[in-house]
Amino acid sequence: MKVSELGEFGLIDLLAKTIAGSPGKEAGQQLILGIGDDAAAWYGDTSTQLATVDSLIQDVHFSLGITPWHELGWKALAANLSDIAAMGGMPRYALVSLALPDHTEVEDITALYQGMIELSRQFNVAIVGGDTSRAPLVIITITVLGITSQDNPVLTRSGAKPGDKVAATGCLGTAAASWEMLTKQLRFNSEATACLKEAFLHPYPRIAEGQLLVEQGVKTAIDISDGLISDLNHICKASQVSARIEVERVPILPTVKANFEGKAHELALSGGEDYELLFTGSVDVINKVKTTASCPVTVIGEITTAQPSQVTVVDEKGKPIKIHKAGWEHFTAR
Amino acid sequence: MKVSELGEFGLIDLLAKTIAGSPGKEAGQQLILGIGDDAAAWYGDTSTQLATVDSLIQDVHFSLGITPWHELGWKALAANLSDIAAMGGMPRYALVSLALPDHTEVEDITALYQGMIELSRQFNVAIVGGDTSRAPLVIITITVLGITSQDNPVLTRSGAKPGDKVAATGCLGTAAASWEMLTKQLRFNSEATACLKEAFLHPYPRIAEGQLLVEQGVKTAIDISDGLISDLNHICKASQVSARIEVERVPILPTVKANFEGKAHELALSGGEDYELLFTGSVDVINKVKTTASCPVTVIGEITTAQPSQVTVVDEKGKPIKIHKAGWEHFTAR
Repeated sequence: MKVSELGEFGLIDLLAKTIAGSPGKEAGQQLILGIGDDAAAWYGDTSTQLATVDSLIQDVHFSLGITPWHELGWKALAANLSDIAAMGGMPRYALVSLALPDHTEVEDITALYQGMIELSRQFNVAIVGGDTSRAPLVIITITVLGITSQDNPVLTRSGAKPGDKVAATGCLGTAAASWEMLTKQLRFNSEATACLKEAFLHPYPRIAEGQLLVEQGVKTAIDISDGLISDLNHICKASQVSARIEVERVPILPTVKANFEGKAHELALSGGEDYELLFTGSVDVINKVKTTASCPVTVIGEITTAQPSQVTVVDEKGKPIKIHKAGWEHFTAR
Repeated sequence: MKVSELGEFGLIDLLAKTIAGSPGKEAGQQLILGIGDDAAAWYGDTSTQLATVDSLIQDVHFSLGITPWHELGWKALAANLSDIAAMGGMPRYALVSLALPDHTEVEDITALYQGMIELSRQFNVAIVGGDTSRAPLVIITITVLGITSQDNPVLTRSGAKPGDKVAATGCLGTAAASWEMLTKQLRFNSEATACLKEAFLHPYPRIAEGQLLVEQGVKTAIDISDGLISDLNHICKASQVSARIEVERVPILPTVKANFEGKAHELALSGGEDYELLFTGSVDVINKVKTTASCPVTVIGEITTAQPSQVTVVDEKGKPIKIHKAGWEHFTAR
């Protein structure tokens, strides 16, 4: 059945039913009104409040030929949860604004929501509102509201200091490698294929790690959504510092190294959508994070003072490497 | 200059500068981080929290030939503030997700934001975040976060009871009349033209009135964004009641009556975007609202028990009138 047969209010009813019973436990207890009124309502508290929004636009941010509806729902929410993770926060509520062509299949929308619900359950996030409208292409805009544990400061982009080490969680370039594999229809062994697919289609926001960073005294973090260089640039600009990355230290999955020889570094430096955390701190602070984190944490460079707001990448001999593509930026010619 | 020349991060810088210094006073004092980090952050409090989102899509919700950029910004925010008004709340923070074609003029985007800022100042709303992306058409998604005064209940759609009177603020059908005028290029005298234009291009959300409704004991309200019948239908469905509207009582501006003879009732019953408040309550409660409100409040019908979830419109003799178009609904064939 197409959404045009269901109508807007029929679709809203269906989505409300799909979501019913799925709200996150803690967020749900605070909830006064979820989907179905002019606004969602919940009991406030004195935690620091966080809010972030992201739009995903068909054939700009995703292609339905590459990303199935269920995975699209997961990813759309994951991208926003990752922004809350980068603040050291806990996500609580989500609002979903969905624009769709008339001919969209209702089952596809249900799958989209199932993907969102699956991820939302893992982090006790309640989907509490949104809106639906007709559009010539699919547009998913998710707003996520979160909190930080009481009295905890938020992680910002603006606290990096010269001498700080630059570190990252997990491995970089995996999502970009997956994108290459999927769009160019590259064929690898089944293990590599599954591993890469998972990275691109089911990114896992580093919520627990973001909170750990705060606990261990990290002040500055960002999530790697645009690409390592691009996101480190954001930190440098906001902190008015420069940074140097040692390319050989950047953590890359063996599968990516093996299957993208000669291109792996570029993918790791400029590929986006890994949703890992990039952060800075003193050697002591970073070491505390390394010993307490349940995921790999790698020091990849340091914050310098030279040339404000510049990111330099150097090879194993300390020689600067020219970077052709820093990462993802909208509106610029590519 | 086109946004493609400025780039995404250049555009974000420009928007941050445009917004700087404009945050609402009260909301601004609570703000920890506005635009420029992964998420906005502010100090929470124990008020009831409200959240609503709406997407406006080019050539679905608006046409740039009819609505100039400045007015588009105003309207986009007004539609969301109106949802907070319908809950009896006060808006505090807004997040703006903006998708644009590459060739969009930067000055147009500045005008769009100026329109939003102008309205946001009137209600002490701070624009604290958002995102920008490339798209084949203009899409504006605004999330508004608000609160209700402490200990105040929220207005919902679900509290209407048989015997309640149905009332509305202001006049209905004015925005729809304006739309007819603008799209069909109808010509009226300058006073009528100005009055109609204002209704469509500068709708004024009923924030103060929403709070007044709560204070006077109203439990049930909605804003008239889809159209009177359609929005009353939402109340009836959520409250499991029916309603009867007396068509001759529906408040219509003399200008609309005079210039849209024979069509004025249809515009008032089915036209959307008036952003007036529709509410129900006992005769006593409605009378208290009427004597304290600084805008016209008109009783237009009552809540009945007959036939759950049905809205009936009757003429001056009590004879039911057939309604062809209830209001605005996405995805349905029109």
